[in-house]
Amino acid sequence: MTDRVRENSGHGGHPGRRPSRRQLLTTTAAGLVVAGTGSVHAQSPRKPVIANAKNQPPNVPDWSKVLGDGVAARPYGTPSKYEAHVVRQDVEWLTASRESSVNFTPLHELDGIITPNGLCFERHHGGAARINPLDHRLMVNGLVDKPMLFTMDDIKRFPRVNRIHFLECAANTGMEWRGAQLNGCQFTHGMVHNVMYTGVPLKLILEEAGLKPNARWLLLEGADSAGMTRSLPLEKALKDTLVAFKMNGEALREEQGYPLRVVVPGWEGNLWVKWLRRIEVGDQPWHTREETSKYTDLLADGRSRRFTYIMDAKSVVTNPSPQAPLRYKGHNVLTGLAWSGRGTIARVDVSLDGGRNWRTARIDGPVLEASLTRFYVEFDWQGEELLIQSRAMDSTGYVQPSKAELRKVRGVNSIYHNNGMQTWLVRANGETENVEIS
Amino acid sequence: MTDRVRENSGHGGHPGRRPSRRQLLTTTAAGLVVAGTGSVHAQSPRKPVIANAKNQPPNVPDWSKVLGDGVAARPYGTPSKYEAHVVRQDVEWLTASRESSVNFTPLHELDGIITPNGLCFERHHGGAARINPLDHRLMVNGLVDKPMLFTMDDIKRFPRVNRIHFLECAANTGMEWRGAQLNGCQFTHGMVHNVMYTGVPLKLILEEAGLKPNARWLLLEGADSAGMTRSLPLEKALKDTLVAFKMNGEALREEQGYPLRVVVPGWEGNLWVKWLRRIEVGDQPWHTREETSKYTDLLADGRSRRFTYIMDAKSVVTNPSPQAPLRYKGHNVLTGLAWSGRGTIARVDVSLDGGRNWRTARIDGPVLEASLTRFYVEFDWQGEELLIQSRAMDSTGYVQPSKAELRKVRGVNSIYHNNGMQTWLVRANGETENVEIS
Repeated sequence: MTDRVRENSGHGGHPGRRPSRRQLLTTTAAGLVVAGTGSVHAQSPRKPVIANAKNQPPNVPDWSKVLGDGVAARPYGTPSKYEAHVVRQDVEWLTASRESSVNFTPLHELDGIITPNGLCFERHHGGAARINPLDHRLMVNGLVDKPMLFTMDDIKRFPRVNRIHFLECAANTGMEWRGAQLNGCQFTHGMVHNVMYTGVPLKLILEEAGLKPNARWLLLEGADSAGMTRSLPLEKALKDTLVAFKMNGEALREEQGYPLRVVVPGWEGNLWVKWLRRIEVGDQPWHTREETSKYTDLLADGRSRRFTYIMDAKSVVTNPSPQAPLRYKGHNVLTGLAWSGRGTIARVDVSLDGGRNWRTARIDGPVLEASLTRFYVEFDWQGEELLIQSRAMDSTGYVQPSKAELRKVRGVNSIYHNNGMQTWLVRANGETENVEIS
Repeated sequence: MTDRVRENSGHGGHPGRRPSRRQLLTTTAAGLVVAGTGSVHAQSPRKPVIANAKNQPPNVPDWSKVLGDGVAARPYGTPSKYEAHVVRQDVEWLTASRESSVNFTPLHELDGIITPNGLCFERHHGGAARINPLDHRLMVNGLVDKPMLFTMDDIKRFPRVNRIHFLECAANTGMEWRGAQLNGCQFTHGMVHNVMYTGVPLKLILEEAGLKPNARWLLLEGADSAGMTRSLPLEKALKDTLVAFKMNGEALREEQGYPLRVVVPGWEGNLWVKWLRRIEVGDQPWHTREETSKYTDLLADGRSRRFTYIMDAKSVVTNPSPQAPLRYKGHNVLTGLAWSGRGTIARVDVSLDGGRNWRTARIDGPVLEASLTRFYVEFDWQGEELLIQSRAMDSTGYVQPSKAELRKVRGVNSIYHNNGMQTWLVRANGETENVEIS
């Protein structure tokens, strides 16, 4: 199996630290080279196997004997203190300043397809703006019949719709282009979330202003201190783009663009401009900083792919994973997420032996356009080493590639649009590592 | 129109107060008698109509000039301070003690079909238990081949599924049996929420224990200080009942039964036992307190309906409503929720004139079994008084009745299973009141 091993390079190990190369490289029984320091802090299990009547709980616990709290303490509820470890985490050395900050969704702690608002990853280019919605305006100008300025109340008087969509940063999994790096799916794949948006079809707002015949592109501009600006083709704006003011039923969170953001189903997250304050209609793209120097994919020959909007089909096994090791022999549930910006997920296959054998996963829960889709594989584990991979197929017939296949075409200069298959090594003791096999 | 007016009786007015009868009864231009003190505190609108270029925002605001916060401040995010009014609220005189406490979902502030976990109403019979999941056990005993005791980890090793379902308290809208009372859909209809659950089909757990041939009923028992116990027919348990540990992707909230609760799709909320610690299998129902003295519907002749499990089709307009008055003439969006415990919502009709004329609402977003379903009506308003009603029809052909129709059959003794149509009066100034028309 050693001939299939690829050494990792660059940064790696436990997020927030730069381990030395010596720390990074550990040789496993199978001869694999793995990222990370190998230390997995599992909760101590109380019982190792499916329980039976000998598996006694403590005596009658206090919570069954003493009145619990009433309702007054929780006008807006928060998680149990026993879930305090379920949080967004940043990686200090990655983007440490307010000019460029990011944290990651704890995918390994979640299930189903809805991401709770408090756990949706953040990515800011000028920090999170704190906007008073009464003072916020949306301007529509450029190639329109009537330049317009809308209050938030105006926006809410248009017909609105509800859609569940994933938002994935183009740089999600970007650190993995050059090899296995960050040790946990929260860090390798956690720049994605999936919520139900309520908003107004952008088409209706543009129709209110009236498009000139030569209108072809939009400039979307945020009200944050970065003044985030991206060009969007008019065709996509008229097809399914929303101007959203609610996520998972309630107002957008500030870090997600409160009070107004763009929703561009299936397209890279940077286009989903937050704190939306202006839409300019033009006849060509603007070539802003964020679509030239950034958010273009540098190829091996020095040229760049640009306007690489669509997020191709991708998947990741969230459990087991480096932050969620296997803890029991016998019955286990493997689960993960798959998504495609081009349609729905048609099928997910999972391998436990590094791609030699595949089984089709059980998809459960809604299967929606440009939405996270949940899959499961129930399996029996007797302590053998596993090399876990998942491979998504979407409704267009596209199949998620291996990282090697991607690199052949794109090289390793880019940090964007890495949708290659992820590999987790599960050791005999259940510890799980981010590894690379060629 | 006055001959259609019904005087309200009993408690009423602004929640948390018992206004005098004189305060309660206000006569409108249309001769209607309305509940509540009539005082609506609308936000002062900045602009009254669809905006234009003269509708200027303030000078460049600070949030566009100053770096916002980075990500470190928000490992688990919370709403904007400008949304501080969007909270669960209790009604002091209704159930004021920890032995019996309740608060209400702010339906008028939400959209789409997902209720954020922090805003899901609570109803406790012994306060909210705070359970350490490592010490929690689920026992299965009674008419089984092997009595069993499961840890939380054991539960998570069964195959799991994801389902979006409403949970409605049987007493939701219960104060309205005797007439228009609480002034706001949060208080009249806010004992309902709708989330995505992840859990194990109860069937699989019962199969693991092995059912005896004479098994017919289950006793579900909570670990809270109330020791909540309800009888559930085995047929429903095997059909679609879940033992759930996640809601909207993350662990159950404590007030929703962390770490384990029952999900009984379409059936009354009290059966969805929280903090689930024991399932006993028997051959007949247990006739516990919560299914004899409580959660039975007292009829006019002194007899009671019992085991009234299914929540029939129901709907409510959430905007406009007493807490969310109309603020602008011209274009307006009416929205609301419909649901049925017997299947999906097939259609919702809305009347703006107290039931004389009806139009079919636009349903938007997923239409799922036993789930909240979102509907909209876009309408033009020129300041005329409105009497707004909605009427749900489900996939079985059942049509939501009027309150008068319900009372003919059930009398007015009950506080449970009121699924009658709700009426909101919108006055010329936009203020909206809970009224009753016969």
